Amino acid sequence: MQKYLKLGKRLFPICRSITGDGVRTTLKILKEFIPKLKIYEVKSGTKVFDWEVPPEWNIKDAYVKDCNGNKIIDFKRNNLHLVSYSISINKKLTKKELFNHIHTHKIPNAIPYLTSYYKKYWGFCITKKKKKIFDKKYKNTDQFEVKINSSLNKKGSLTYGELTIPGKSKKEILISTYICHPSMANNELSGPLVSTALARYFSSNKVYSKTLRFIFIPETIGAITYINRNLKKLKKNVIAGYNISCIGDERQYSYIPTKYGDTLSDKAAIKAFKDLKLKFYTYSFLTRGSDERQFNSPGIDLPIASLMRTKYGIYPEYHTSLDNFDLVTRKGLKGGFDLVKKVINILMKNFIPYNLILCEPKIMKRRLHKNLKTRNIIELSRNSYNIRIKYMNFLQYADGTNDLTDISNYIKLPFDETYKVFQILKKKKLIKI
Amino acid sequence: MQKYLKLGKRLFPICRSITGDGVRTTLKILKEFIPKLKIYEVKSGTKVFDWEVPPEWNIKDAYVKDCNGNKIIDFKRNNLHLVSYSISINKKLTKKELFNHIHTHKIPNAIPYLTSYYKKYWGFCITKKKKKIFDKKYKNTDQFEVKINSSLNKKGSLTYGELTIPGKSKKEILISTYICHPSMANNELSGPLVSTALARYFSSNKVYSKTLRFIFIPETIGAITYINRNLKKLKKNVIAGYNISCIGDERQYSYIPTKYGDTLSDKAAIKAFKDLKLKFYTYSFLTRGSDERQFNSPGIDLPIASLMRTKYGIYPEYHTSLDNFDLVTRKGLKGGFDLVKKVINILMKNFIPYNLILCEPKIMKRRLHKNLKTRNIIELSRNSYNIRIKYMNFLQYADGTNDLTDISNYIKLPFDETYKVFQILKKKKLIKI
Amino acid sequence: MQKYLKLGKRLFPICRSITGDGVRTTLKILKEFIPKLKIYEVKSGTKVFDWEVPPEWNIKDAYVKDCNGNKIIDFKRNNLHLVSYSISINKKLTKKELFNHIHTHKIPNAIPYLTSYYKKYWGFCITKKKKKIFDKKYKNTDQFEVKINSSLNKKGSLTYGELTIPGKSKKEILISTYICHPSMANNELSGPLVSTALARYFSSNKVYSKTLRFIFIPETIGAITYINRNLKKLKKNVIAGYNISCIGDERQYSYIPTKYGDTLSDKAAIKAFKDLKLKFYTYSFLTRGSDERQFNSPGIDLPIASLMRTKYGIYPEYHTSLDNFDLVTRKGLKGGFDLVKKVINILMKNFIPYNLILCEPKIMKRRLHKNLKTRNIIELSRNSYNIRIKYMNFLQYADGTNDLTDISNYIKLPFDETYKVFQILKKKKLIKI
Repeated sequence: MQKYLKLGKRLFPICRSITGDGVRTTLKILKEFIPKLKIYEVKSGTKVFDWEVPPEWNIKDAYVKDCNGNKIIDFKRNNLHLVSYSISINKKLTKKELFNHIHTHKIPNAIPYLTSYYKKYWGFCITKKKKKIFDKKYKNTDQFEVKINSSLNKKGSLTYGELTIPGKSKKEILISTYICHPSMANNELSGPLVSTALARYFSSNKVYSKTLRFIFIPETIGAITYINRNLKKLKKNVIAGYNISCIGDERQYSYIPTKYGDTLSDKAAIKAFKDLKLKFYTYSFLTRGSDERQFNSPGIDLPIASLMRTKYGIYPEYHTSLDNFDLVTRKGLKGGFDLVKKVINILMKNFIPYNLILCEPKIMKRRLHKNLKTRNIIELSRNSYNIRIKYMNFLQYADGTNDLTDISNYIKLPFDETYKVFQILKKKKLIKI
Repeated sequence: MQKYLKLGKRLFPICRSITGDGVRTTLKILKEFIPKLKIYEVKSGTKVFDWEVPPEWNIKDAYVKDCNGNKIIDFKRNNLHLVSYSISINKKLTKKELFNHIHTHKIPNAIPYLTSYYKKYWGFCITKKKKKIFDKKYKNTDQFEVKINSSLNKKGSLTYGELTIPGKSKKEILISTYICHPSMANNELSGPLVSTALARYFSSNKVYSKTLRFIFIPETIGAITYINRNLKKLKKNVIAGYNISCIGDERQYSYIPTKYGDTLSDKAAIKAFKDLKLKFYTYSFLTRGSDERQFNSPGIDLPIASLMRTKYGIYPEYHTSLDNFDLVTRKGLKGGFDLVKKVINILMKNFIPYNLILCEPKIMKRRLHKNLKTRNIIELSRNSYNIRIKYMNFLQYADGTNDLTDISNYIKLPFDETYKVFQILKKKKLIKI
Repeated sequence: MQKYLKLGKRLFPICRSITGDGVRTTLKILKEFIPKLKIYEVKSGTKVFDWEVPPEWNIKDAYVKDCNGNKIIDFKRNNLHLVSYSISINKKLTKKELFNHIHTHKIPNAIPYLTSYYKKYWGFCITKKKKKIFDKKYKNTDQFEVKINSSLNKKGSLTYGELTIPGKSKKEILISTYICHPSMANNELSGPLVSTALARYFSSNKVYSKTLRFIFIPETIGAITYINRNLKKLKKNVIAGYNISCIGDERQYSYIPTKYGDTLSDKAAIKAFKDLKLKFYTYSFLTRGSDERQFNSPGIDLPIASLMRTKYGIYPEYHTSLDNFDLVTRKGLKGGFDLVKKVINILMKNFIPYNLILCEPKIMKRRLHKNLKTRNIIELSRNSYNIRIKYMNFLQYADGTNDLTDISNYIKLPFDETYKVFQILKKKKLIKI
């Protein structure tokens, strides 16, 4: 994952928002890694269900100068300094007027991340420490020059990326992640980084059993826009899927189930956590906060769960300048990647098998264990029982009511072992799918 | 509830039984409080399923005089002194003969309440204490004059009362209580008193969403008679209902679920207990003992549960002269009233909502929280999340598979808060019913 | 059960295998006890699903002589000394060559039970102790005469027995047990012994409500053969059934449920264990090891569970010469017999009753308790409540969704008491089936 950590650090300084060149640049860089990534533009003003695509926001510069001409806040140092979607301004203000537009975080040395997408507003974010210094340093009568050079273009567009990796079946697994957060590492570059790594991993020559789709979208409005444009197809094809977010730190693993917690997405995710022997915390669906909100909505009803390491809102650095590459590590990203890879692999290998032979098959005539070496035929028979039993257990539950995740639960084998049994039984024509 | 306590004390001395003037007078007095109460008479001898309406019993006087002409037992002092449905008698008896017809209770100073509706019999009930005194006082050879002036009229009738409070829908909530017990306060004047209070409360000008029906019936034979005359209508319309009994004391709350415990009546009752933060004991359906026996029978299959304070048979004063207005209090009745009112209100406000908008709605454009005052737009956005989340949670589960009690369970809000969310979402046209 | 213990001791020395005269003789002896037992022969080579009936194996003699002409291993002393289905041999061997074909058990004084039905092989089984002695006594250069006089007849047959006890209905209870194990008492003469006792018990003049079928078959290949020949009929008629095995010792009772544990067989078995107040251990279906493997297979789908005392594979004497009539006792067999008898009786008495009367019936007019003697009519009424309540409880659940095992669970009565209530209600025409 070293490569993706490096990619993360390259993407980090870009000022992303829900629209604008930050998203566009980010997607262009991701396309270097995933050449088949398609980039879409949806015009500002487009109606998408209850919403409309907002004007495109771009930012050239933003700063505050004190009466001595010193830039005391400078967007170019850290794009979190500016409230995202801040409107243009060029004004002299008193200290009090300025302070009304200055936001801090309870952690003294953290710059908060704030946005005002749908209410026209401007504002700056600085550390509590710095605000205290300013407060002491400047008199109430001091004047400040506030300059924000931004644009809100009603003829602009919202940008998102999509990668389809076609499988043998049109039934698909949907991986959704978001690319609208500026200069934060876990929330949210980790999701796009892990997704990019997965996209490359599953873009081999191998054709998988199901289609795999990745979407790199702005959160909320991007998800709503994407669903609006693809609803019929999604409802027809998506059999499971996940929102990928905050998946690059080294702390606990976290899971938010689908609305009722009873879908294939839930079965596969829980199986993966267990088979990987990962401790994980299951949050209530009521604590959801990302695009699973849209996917699970009535009428959309897509079985999208959320795979995370420490959940958004839970870790102290969340939505501040401290969410950086001290928090997100190669090891952290690797853990996230391995988890989602495992989940996808389970889904790719998941089938409903049907037993083809009545009663138990005469297993010894099928040489399931050709490499078995034992002292003699009697020992062979003793040992082979332990080998045979897993095939026999599998066959018992291959009655058309269970898929491989169910069978692995019934016969108490990890999914991969269950899958190996499945493969051998299929090859030996004892089952079909 | 002071008014209803006073009403209770007025009704207390009347000698009620399953038929006769005691019931008739009682219903006439209730009609003063509920002018729309309809009073029905069903002729003795009418076949009702496996039963027939019994002859009408009335009682003028009953006493036992000793050899000195002293009335040593006098029905006029306490109508529990007479076994209900005692036949007429006018005889001289020896002490032994008399004692064969005298019944006591294990509590020394309690007169038991006994009946013999379907076997011709006569008898007196006195306290154990008094019996002991008599035993000492009188010799075995003493003679007693026993006089019971009662009538069993085969051309009489069984009387019951019914109040229908029509709602917007013909779907109805059925409240059943019984008016066949003489001179006892909890079992059973508390049920009729609480029901009368509820009948008045819900007889406002307001038209509720569902019809509310109260029946004031003699227990068992009255329920069977009522069901026999109304079965088709009941099966068509009743969506929930309760037997109300022993609901005026200050002790614990009690609940008997419907036969399988899985009906709307059960959901609403349990929600009410929880939202009111009342401790309550759930009895097994096997311990039932009132008219839920008839309503839940196969072929009737009405979802009638029982709401009580201390359950019949459980409190020591049960079915004795000690079940009086020391046990039943204004506070006790008020608690019972509040519980059933809550349950009915939950049912009246219970709907299946359907989300009208795909994906989450753009909630900020709908001004759900106009009174919210905060320092600035950013704070507003932070606070509004906590307000918005309950609307969003509601909408997620408004998928047509859940009613409001289900949704309140899913989103972990009390019913009334869930209902408020429902009302606002409905007003804002985000859901329909 | 003394008679069946004696029968067991008579059958013990016979050298049974999956085919051959051992099985035939065994069934002939069982037929003395069950004259209506039908004995079937299925030709070697017959295709049965994935298998074919093997050649018939018979054994005349088998021994090993040392260089001095002493028979140091002699099949005639204990037929476990020979690996079942050993092919003929008549050879001089070195000690090393001989030892390659000699098998022992971890218990020093136990002769193991081994078979090689489907791989051509010969071998002897002795105690570890004896092998040690031989090892010391004989030099590596010593020669041994090995003689096995067996036959594998491709024109032979597989033998099994079947007893049908016709009931009022063709719906049937299937009891399966196996007669292919030589000279072991618990596994497996106990199953055939208990089954024989049950066959006689249920072969009275009485016609039971359901058909009862016993099959005495060689394990695995016998079950497969039997199912192959009777599948359509079995699938049509079998409503419950059990594999009976290892049911003659005095240790714990054991149970293996059907594949999903949710069939009538499971309900009846668990009810029997509980009503008999027997402690029992429920094993996972994954630990199955007898003919329930075939019966539960997909496409066969017969609800066959297993009733045992100590499960095969669990007790130390399992599959050795120590599994003898020290382990299996009259008391042990009696316990097994009583359990299965109880289970069958529950199934025979199990019906779905339908309430015939709307609301509660007027029970007093039906004299359900004619023998009740009490001081007077009032006491009668008090006592009769406790008697009436079980009838009333039964009627509540007699709504067509429950059979008698369900009702006995709901109303918390043992099955037999529930059945008595059922009988009286049926006689009084309050229910029908």
